[in-house]
Formats: sequence, C-alpha cells, structure tokens
Amino acid sequence: MINVGILGATGAVGQRFVQMLAGHPWFSLQVLTASERSAGKRYADIVNWRLDVPFPEEIGDLTVSPTTVDAVKECDLVFSALPADVARGIEEEAAAAGVGVCSNASSHRMDPDVPLVIPEVNPDHLGLIDLQHERGRDGFIVTNPNCSTIMLTLALEPLRTFGFSSVQVATLQAISGAGFRGVAGMEIYDNVVPYIGGEEEKMATEPRKIMGSLNGSEIEPAPFTVSACCNRVPVIDGHTLSVWVDIDRPIDEVKEAFRSYAAPFSGLPTQPERSVEYLEQPDRPQPRLDRNRGNGMTVSVGRLREGLRFTALGHNTIRGAAGASVLNAELIYKKKYL
Amino acid sequence: MINVGILGATGAVGQRFVQMLAGHPWFSLQVLTASERSAGKRYADIVNWRLDVPFPEEIGDLTVSPTTVDAVKECDLVFSALPADVARGIEEEAAAAGVGVCSNASSHRMDPDVPLVIPEVNPDHLGLIDLQHERGRDGFIVTNPNCSTIMLTLALEPLRTFGFSSVQVATLQAISGAGFRGVAGMEIYDNVVPYIGGEEEKMATEPRKIMGSLNGSEIEPAPFTVSACCNRVPVIDGHTLSVWVDIDRPIDEVKEAFRSYAAPFSGLPTQPERSVEYLEQPDRPQPRLDRNRGNGMTVSVGRLREGLRFTALGHNTIRGAAGASVLNAELIYKKKYL
Amino acid sequence: MINVGILGATGAVGQRFVQMLAGHPWFSLQVLTASERSAGKRYADIVNWRLDVPFPEEIGDLTVSPTTVDAVKECDLVFSALPADVARGIEEEAAAAGVGVCSNASSHRMDPDVPLVIPEVNPDHLGLIDLQHERGRDGFIVTNPNCSTIMLTLALEPLRTFGFSSVQVATLQAISGAGFRGVAGMEIYDNVVPYIGGEEEKMATEPRKIMGSLNGSEIEPAPFTVSACCNRVPVIDGHTLSVWVDIDRPIDEVKEAFRSYAAPFSGLPTQPERSVEYLEQPDRPQPRLDRNRGNGMTVSVGRLREGLRFTALGHNTIRGAAGASVLNAELIYKKKYL
Amino acid sequence: MINVGILGATGAVGQRFVQMLAGHPWFSLQVLTASERSAGKRYADIVNWRLDVPFPEEIGDLTVSPTTVDAVKECDLVFSALPADVARGIEEEAAAAGVGVCSNASSHRMDPDVPLVIPEVNPDHLGLIDLQHERGRDGFIVTNPNCSTIMLTLALEPLRTFGFSSVQVATLQAISGAGFRGVAGMEIYDNVVPYIGGEEEKMATEPRKIMGSLNGSEIEPAPFTVSACCNRVPVIDGHTLSVWVDIDRPIDEVKEAFRSYAAPFSGLPTQPERSVEYLEQPDRPQPRLDRNRGNGMTVSVGRLREGLRFTALGHNTIRGAAGASVLNAELIYKKKYL
Repeated sequence: MINVGILGATGAVGQRFVQMLAGHPWFSLQVLTASERSAGKRYADIVNWRLDVPFPEEIGDLTVSPTTVDAVKECDLVFSALPADVARGIEEEAAAAGVGVCSNASSHRMDPDVPLVIPEVNPDHLGLIDLQHERGRDGFIVTNPNCSTIMLTLALEPLRTFGFSSVQVATLQAISGAGFRGVAGMEIYDNVVPYIGGEEEKMATEPRKIMGSLNGSEIEPAPFTVSACCNRVPVIDGHTLSVWVDIDRPIDEVKEAFRSYAAPFSGLPTQPERSVEYLEQPDRPQPRLDRNRGNGMTVSVGRLREGLRFTALGHNTIRGAAGASVLNAELIYKKKYL
Repeated sequence: MINVGILGATGAVGQRFVQMLAGHPWFSLQVLTASERSAGKRYADIVNWRLDVPFPEEIGDLTVSPTTVDAVKECDLVFSALPADVARGIEEEAAAAGVGVCSNASSHRMDPDVPLVIPEVNPDHLGLIDLQHERGRDGFIVTNPNCSTIMLTLALEPLRTFGFSSVQVATLQAISGAGFRGVAGMEIYDNVVPYIGGEEEKMATEPRKIMGSLNGSEIEPAPFTVSACCNRVPVIDGHTLSVWVDIDRPIDEVKEAFRSYAAPFSGLPTQPERSVEYLEQPDRPQPRLDRNRGNGMTVSVGRLREGLRFTALGHNTIRGAAGASVLNAELIYKKKYL
Repeated sequence: MINVGILGATGAVGQRFVQMLAGHPWFSLQVLTASERSAGKRYADIVNWRLDVPFPEEIGDLTVSPTTVDAVKECDLVFSALPADVARGIEEEAAAAGVGVCSNASSHRMDPDVPLVIPEVNPDHLGLIDLQHERGRDGFIVTNPNCSTIMLTLALEPLRTFGFSSVQVATLQAISGAGFRGVAGMEIYDNVVPYIGGEEEKMATEPRKIMGSLNGSEIEPAPFTVSACCNRVPVIDGHTLSVWVDIDRPIDEVKEAFRSYAAPFSGLPTQPERSVEYLEQPDRPQPRLDRNRGNGMTVSVGRLREGLRFTALGHNTIRGAAGASVLNAELIYKKKYL
Repeated sequence: MINVGILGATGAVGQRFVQMLAGHPWFSLQVLTASERSAGKRYADIVNWRLDVPFPEEIGDLTVSPTTVDAVKECDLVFSALPADVARGIEEEAAAAGVGVCSNASSHRMDPDVPLVIPEVNPDHLGLIDLQHERGRDGFIVTNPNCSTIMLTLALEPLRTFGFSSVQVATLQAISGAGFRGVAGMEIYDNVVPYIGGEEEKMATEPRKIMGSLNGSEIEPAPFTVSACCNRVPVIDGHTLSVWVDIDRPIDEVKEAFRSYAAPFSGLPTQPERSVEYLEQPDRPQPRLDRNRGNGMTVSVGRLREGLRFTALGHNTIRGAAGASVLNAELIYKKKYL
C-alpha cells in the first residue's frame, strides 16, 4: 500500500478526496491536514461533513495535522485540495522533500515542466516527471485541470481524429464548484450569475496544453482556440456545457466516434466503465440524473446535431476535481513513477 | 379608447396580458376568453392568479367568454395567448371578421404576409398589414417572436451597423416560459434540461425574418445564421443568453454602440426608458436582479468581451411575450392601422 | 425465491420499487404493470427513468403487462404503487385470486381487517392476515402508511413507554411525494405551499391505528390525537417534521430513549442498521444530508428540547413508500405468511 | 421634513431601508453609514445593490459616513440596521446625543424602558419614551421585533379578544433573513435547516412583551407561552408560519375576527390597506405569491381550521425588518415624539 495524505481535507474538494480514498485498494490514507486551529484534533470532531454520502467512520479517528510540509513528508503521495494562493509554496516544498504531489490547485498547472493530465487524453505527459527529477526535484508535481476544462477536454478527445481549430463553449456550472461557502444562497437562488472569476481564461489555455504534444521536454500547445462563456446556475453538483466545434463531418460519423470511444488503459480502480458515454435520449444529459454515472467519473455527452453542437456533463467535484487527481495518481502508480 | 380582448386569458401569458392591459391608457379590456367550462363565469372566480403582482380587481368582474370568433368580433383588437395549434384557425377567423390580431402564438409568424415585429427593430414590416388588406382580410394578424428570439434580436439591433454573418447563442431559459404547468418541479429543481422542443429552430429562422428587408410585398431574410443551444434552468422568470457574434471591431466601439442605442420612436405607453441597457458591472445581467428593468421591457446586456461575446437578458413573459404583443399593438395604433 | 410483481411500475414510487427489488435476495421480480398503451413493450423502452441511481439494466428486458389481475395472478406477492382510486378494485381482486398484496396506496389502509404496518411498530398486526383468510380471501392485503405518517410514527415509537396523549406536527414535505408531475416548477420554486390534500387527515388517523392494540379481530386505536399542519417545500426528496409531544420527562431521559432504541427484529434485507437514529449536532437532521442514511430506510431525529419538541426526517419515497412496502413484505415472508 | 439617517446602509436590511425611505413624504434621507473603508465614497459606488427593485438613483449621490455617533448626531431620527453586537453601543450614544433611534437590532429589545413596538399591537408602549427622557436620555430608542415574531404577533392580534395561553409555531423562514451572505447556497439548496440561532428564544419572549400591559413605567408580559420550532427553507423572501393557538371557539367566529380586523390608526404612509388579510383559498398564503401584499407590509393569514391551526405569512425584510422600523417611526412622528 502507498501511504497518502490530503492537504486541505475539510473543504468541498477535501471531503471528496476523503470519500474517494477511504477504502481505496492501493492507497492508504494516513495524513489529513487543515488549518492551524484544527490541528491535533480528531478529523471526525472538526470536519463539518457536507456530502450526501455517509461519513467514512474509519477515517474519523485520524488526527488532523497543520498544513505544513513536515506533516506530509513521510507520505509517498499527497493530494492537494488547497486554494491556489496557499498551494503554490507548500506543493513545491513537498515535492522538493521527495513527495509526489497530485494537485487540484491551479498554481502549477501551466508550469512548463508540470504535467496537466487527464489520463484518457494525455497519459504520455507524465513523462515530464522525469524532467522534474532531472532538474533536482526528488518528488514531483502533477496537476489536473480546472473542472470545466476536464468536461470539455474529455468530451473533445473522441473527436481528436477529425481535427478542429475552434471551440466555443457556454458553461452552466454547479454551486459546489465554488466550495461550501463560495456562493451565497441569495446570489444563486432563482438566478444565474454570468461570471466566474478566471474560469474563461483557464478554459482558453488548459485544453490546449492537455491536448498538446510532448516534444522532448516541451509541450507544444494544440492548435485550436477555446472561447468560453461561463455561467453559475442553481444546481448543487454537475457542470453542463453547450459546445460548438468546427468539425465538418456527417453527424452519424461523429456520433459513432462518441459511441465507440474507449479509454486507452484499463484496470485503474477509480476508472469508470465508460469515460465518455453518449446518451441517446433527446433531452440528456441532465445534471441531477446523470452526474453520478460511473460513480461520478463518466462525462456524459448528448444532443449532437448540426453545427456541430452537443451537450456535455460531468460531476464537478468528482471527475472535475478529487476524482481527477485520484485517477491521475492511479495512473502514476501503474506507470511506476512511485 | 380601443376595445380589446384576450384570447386565452387564464394561462401564464394570458395573465401577463391582463396585468399589462388593466389600466392601459389607450386600450380598454372588454373581452376575456377561456375554455368552454369557464365560459359564463366571472374571471375572478375561475382564474388561478399565479403572478407575484396583485390581481387587478377591476378586471375580475368581466364575464369569461368561450374561445370563439363570436366572442371577440366586436373588439377592435385582440391579443392571442393561445397555444399554437388552437391559435391558427381562430386567429385567421378573427382577422377575417375585421379584428386586428396581435399574437404571441407561433402559428403565423413565418407566414409571408404576416409581420413578425419587434418595434425597435422592424417597425416598417407593419406595411404587410396593407398587403393583408389587399388580399381580402378585413382585419390583420401581427405576431411577435418567440421569447428567446426577442432577447437575442433586440440585443443584436445596436450592432446591425457593424454587420455580421454568424451568431451562436446558448440560452438559459426560465421555467415560466413553458407555462404554469409546463415544467414539473421534479424535472427542473437542482437540474438543467438541455432541450426545449422547437426552440432552436425558431431562433434559427425568426431573427432573420425580423432583421430582413421588406421589399414591396416580400421580406428578404437577413444574411446571417443563428446556431442555438437551448437550456432550461431553475429560474422563475428571465432568460439569460450567452452570445457570440462575428464582429471584428474594437470592444470599446461595440460597447459604445450598446450604450448609445436609443429606440427609433417614443411615446408608447409600454415602452421602457431604455429598450437595451448596457450594464457595466462585471457579473451582470442576472435574472433575479435585472429581469424587472424597465418594468420587464428592457433587454439588459453586459460582459462584452473579445470573441465577440456578451450576455443578454430579458423578462420572458413580459418583454418576451405579453409585453411584446402590447408594444406591437401600441405601435400599430400610433401608426393608425387601427 | 418468491415471485413478485409491481402494479404501476413507471411512476415515482413504482421506479423506487424497481430499484429496491432489482437484485433482492429473497424476491424475484417477474411482472411489471403499467397503462394499456405501454403493455407488451420492454420496460426499458417505456420507462422514463427519473431516479438519480443507475437504471437496473437486468430489469429493462421485462415485458410490461397491463394493470389487470390476470397479469399478476401467478405472482406470490405484488407491490402496489397505484393511485388510490385505481388501487382499490384491483388489489381486492388480486388478493381474492390468492396473491399477497403489499400496497402503498391509501385505499385499504383503514379497512378494519387490513393491517397498516410499520415493522418496527406493530408487527403483530399482521395477525389480521389470518382474519382475511377466515373471511374467504385466498391471498391478503397489507398496507403501509402515508409517507409523513411513517416518519412521525417511527419517531414516536421509542417514546411509547413514556405515554403521551397529544401530538402536534408541522411537516415540510418534498416534491417527490406528489409523483413526478404532481407539483409544477412554477408552484414550488422559491415558494412554500401550506396545503397537501388529504394529508392532515391521514396523519390524524393512521398513527392511531398503527400504534393501536390488536384485540382478537379488532384494532383498538391508540388514545392520542395528532394535529398536523402539512406544507410542501422546495426539496426533491426527504420529509422534515417539527414535532411536539406532551411528555413531561427530563430531556436527557427522552434523548436516551432515542439513542438506545433498537428494532424488535433483525435479519430483514432492507432493514437499516438503525431504524431510528438520534443526531447530536444542533442543526440536524437536514434532508439533503440525512435522507440517505441507512440507504434511505433510517428515520433521523434531532434537536430534542423542552416542550417537548424535536425534528424528525426520512426519505419519503424510500422509507415513506416503496421501502416501507418491501420491508413489510420481508417481515411477512419471515413470519411465514407466504 | 424630518432629517433621517441609516446606520448600516449596505446590507440586506440596510438596502431595504434605503428603498423605503427614498421618496418618503415625511422623512428626508440625509445620512448613510457603512464600514470605515466605504466612508467618504458615493453610496452608488460602494453598494452592491441586491434587491430586485430599481436602485433609487437620487440616493446614490449621498456620501457614505463611517458608523459613528458623529455621523448621525445632526439627524432627528436614525434607523439602525446594524448587527446586534455593534448596535448596542452606538444606538445608546446616538440616543444620548438627542437622536431618536428606530432599531431593527435585537440589542435593546428587552430593555425594560425600551418599547418593542408593532404599531397595530402596542402603540401605547411608546409611552416608555417619556420614561427614557426622564432618565436623562435626550433622544430615545424604539425597537421593532424579530422578523418571525412580527408575523406571529400581528396574526395573533385579531384573536386577542378571545384570550389564549399557549401558542405553538413552526416557522419556514426565508434565506434573506440571514443577510446577503448569511446562508450558503450549498447549505440551503434542496434542503431545510431546522435551526436558526437564537430565533426560538426570541419568539418565546418578544411576543409576551409586545402584547403585555404598560403599567406606569413597567411592562407586564402577557400571560401566554410561545413554543417555536424554527426552520430555514429555500425561499428568497417571506416567512411562513404554521400556528396553533388554544382558543376554543367556533372556526367561523375566529375567521370573522381575522376578516374584520382593522388597524387602530390610519394615515401612516407605509401602512398597508390591510395589516392582516385573511385569504380564503385553501392553499394560501404562499411566500412567492403573497409576500408583496400591501407592498410587503401585510401579514397574510389563511387555512384556519380546528385545532386551532392556521398559516401566517409576511415579507421578512419589509414588514419583518425595515418596514417595521419605518412604520414605527411614522407612528412616533404622528404622536409627536419627534
């Protein structure tokens, strides 16, 4: 078993990490960090468990550590659910101390030698880990993309063979994407907020890196543009995307690409039966009904029609955050980087 | 005073017509029609008033008529809030009987000799009324567009001067657009439905007719395409649109076009101070906060940025339905077609 | 394995029955009935699956039967998810034909010889099955209570030892309680509806029968009154109850009764670890966080304080409907009435 | 015109004060206070206007002051929308400096010489102002009750003639009652929170003071008890109450008391046509449809039935907060305490 920890284990993403790592067949959860005032207490006593799945009682007895490199330096691997501003320094320190860091934070995503990975899309980018080692890092940092970027990029992956140069996407993003207290009830109830800070910029840059080519020590960004309009909607979990892509092929041929898509690997514990699933009903996918497909790890696609337009949907705190990091870690382990 | 009636006065749009015509300075509401089983009763006794504005008590005493041409043939003008399948026949009969019909139904919108009008955009299309008279119709039919089309087209009007050929729009549409019982609570709560029957087709065709040129007796559709992705979201009133349009001009110049836009007429009672209002805050417009601008008759625009992308928003049952018809009727009256 | 069927398998409660019976260790689901126009088709082809759990594919191939006694007469047991008006006749016919009927419908709940059962509260009432047999019924009818009644009565059961004569309860009931299309989005969003037809009457009578004494062939209603105020609130699943009961004992003693409560039986597959669970946090139970405790079969209680007041909560379509019937059937089977 | 100010003008209640005082016929709004970092700026530049009514442009030009006694000492009257902990000191200082204070804060509500007033219920309690003067306060402090207390007490006022000794009430309270950021979206969406800190205690004590008798310099609390269960529900504005009261009279007689109730004064600008309105429909009042009756100043009552049970509803930030204070101020002015 690999000893793992979670940096920032009490927030919305941190709790999802706990849920996904409790009982994990490869990873043994040993360390949970939180703010200074929670340190030294039982996790069960300080966490305000807000998920609608049962609290994993066996994790509750862990003693919470402060969010420092000392707390995690004995781990083989840590998952980071820290906010970007806090994450930058501590993730670097942990990696320097020999720890593998799988981070959901945005701080290092665009660093040239840090892989930004969706296992189904760019597993080869993990090769940058070697570069990090060469440059003197004992451990490594691997990041997963922004939640909306993951849904978009995974939905585009089956279409890569057709080629495309321009993507437009309007998002309808869930409340949980902003953390437990990020969106006030008065802000979002009976309302739409057509703005999410930094989100459109991430969607413009991250997919190009992920679908880019690793040439030696450099990633050449993929040659397409993404223009995004990001909206927050009154939905608890599940980001819905209306996507246009400039592919000029018959609908049926493109639909078949979705239907026949299979992940380029198998056997990872958190991997869903289908990473991308095409739903045939005319009014699907829908967040309340489809976000939990594949235990929240499947991106559902539907409504492909002339344009070329389609709808994509995924669970933002599972496939779009904690689950993304855990799946990355499983791939890293399988590829023997640990 | 012009004697007016409402065809289908008990539904979501019918009630908005009642609200907007009660106390109207030019129009005197005399006739309300509903289903056979309500006929003969007081309106107050059969309407299940569901608006969050007070019931206009003075209208409550009107005796409801059945939805037949006999009921409205003494009116100068009737507003139609009927469903499309019922509307077609009775609107034609009423127009044949010399009544002016302002319809929110979709049945006749694309008829070549029926104007599809947004007063600020194509007031000249009312010239088709003369054509209807020449062809033997004593009265006339004038239609207003689909709710989402109105928000989009009115938001595009200030940009007409720049020229454009391609529009993409993702809608986030309110529940009230489907009528009082059109969307079940279980369908839409904590959910998004990425499909609204017929809506994308209407958005593809209606704006081109509205912004088209009336050449003699024919309307030449405007030479642009509209590709829409329509979504239902958990919002009571107010449609939000994420819009892309292929205008290659500096942002400030386009923004100034929005800011300086003024309607080409004035003095209509239902006309808002600003038909299109550009909001400067980075996170606006929002349906709960902005749908009631201009008493629900203003289309709010914001977030103009490179792309060219922006957000537009309007009240779907006021500017997008009943208010649209009433404003059309006011223009018709002012232009002396009555 | 016992062969079972579901009367009315496509609605909100019918789908929950399918979910709970798919893969059941004792019951083999063989028959699904629906309206005439679905008969003869594959269940997967006609059901509009609206639950947020995956569709059980192995059930999808069953051919749907019309809702007639012929369709179910080969079953050992049928579960009824029919509306009350349809249920009355067909349930009687099925029971006459030798089938055991476990019904969620209200039609027969107050029949003197029909047990109205919550397994934890009045398992002995199943003795009325013998009376039904004596009176010539080859099969039997056993009913479960109304959803709100179940939450209330199960929460009162640990307090039975203290005695009480007066209960007041305000309910905050979920949308799903009215079926998939029972509550319109426009009715309930940003709203409360302080009226649910027939609900307060059921809460006044059903708990008294359930907690009553079976004396020979008659049930003597328990000597307390229930005064209910029933409200519908914008929650998908999970009924919350504010309860007052006239027990004059120290809070700690009553709290201990909740904490130490254990069901009077064990080993039923659908039985939760704890039928009643007392939550210690000051702001619990809450429907989104607690409705799925015990796979939706646990009634959560909290906030016990002077008055005597407390909050109770349960999943209305699981513990309050389909799960209630399935648990009844398991008890019936274990007690060898099948 | 009376010069007035608002202490804490940027929050949910502060903005309602601005809305209600803009254009007030008796009061001229001169001073707005906010936190230190907003001081010196235009109100329009610092307020994040979150109400769904238009921003009163004429107020936007006022320069914001810091929340100190100096800022308001030239006012005849100030309205306090401060949080309780901040309010206590500054309200006392302002009153000492000769200013009349109408406070929505809870700090001074239970002070023996401070009137806790609902104009329709206990206008005579304003006599305590004289007592405050005698004790050396140049100005005065008058408070209005907690929002839920106001709905309850105003609904009980028409029943005072019958006498009662025991009231039980379950509340379904709106999100806005906790301020703009008081309730997170993740907390309340698809959820109920059965706990609101301090609310049940306020409902137990405040109604007894309000309906108590002023004997000389003391208020004798009314001899009844209130037992409350307070719940937060996903509603933007409008508190709904399920109420039991131990009155043993025929329903029709009690209903008539509601129907014939009239406020004991008239001519106050903010006073609604009916302070208490009995709604005859079986499923009313409902927050979305009835909260704006009487411009948000009417308490609606309905569903009176045996028990004695009924439903009451009012707008929590208008009748339950800002409007309550403004109506108090109008009564104070009319009674010449200013």
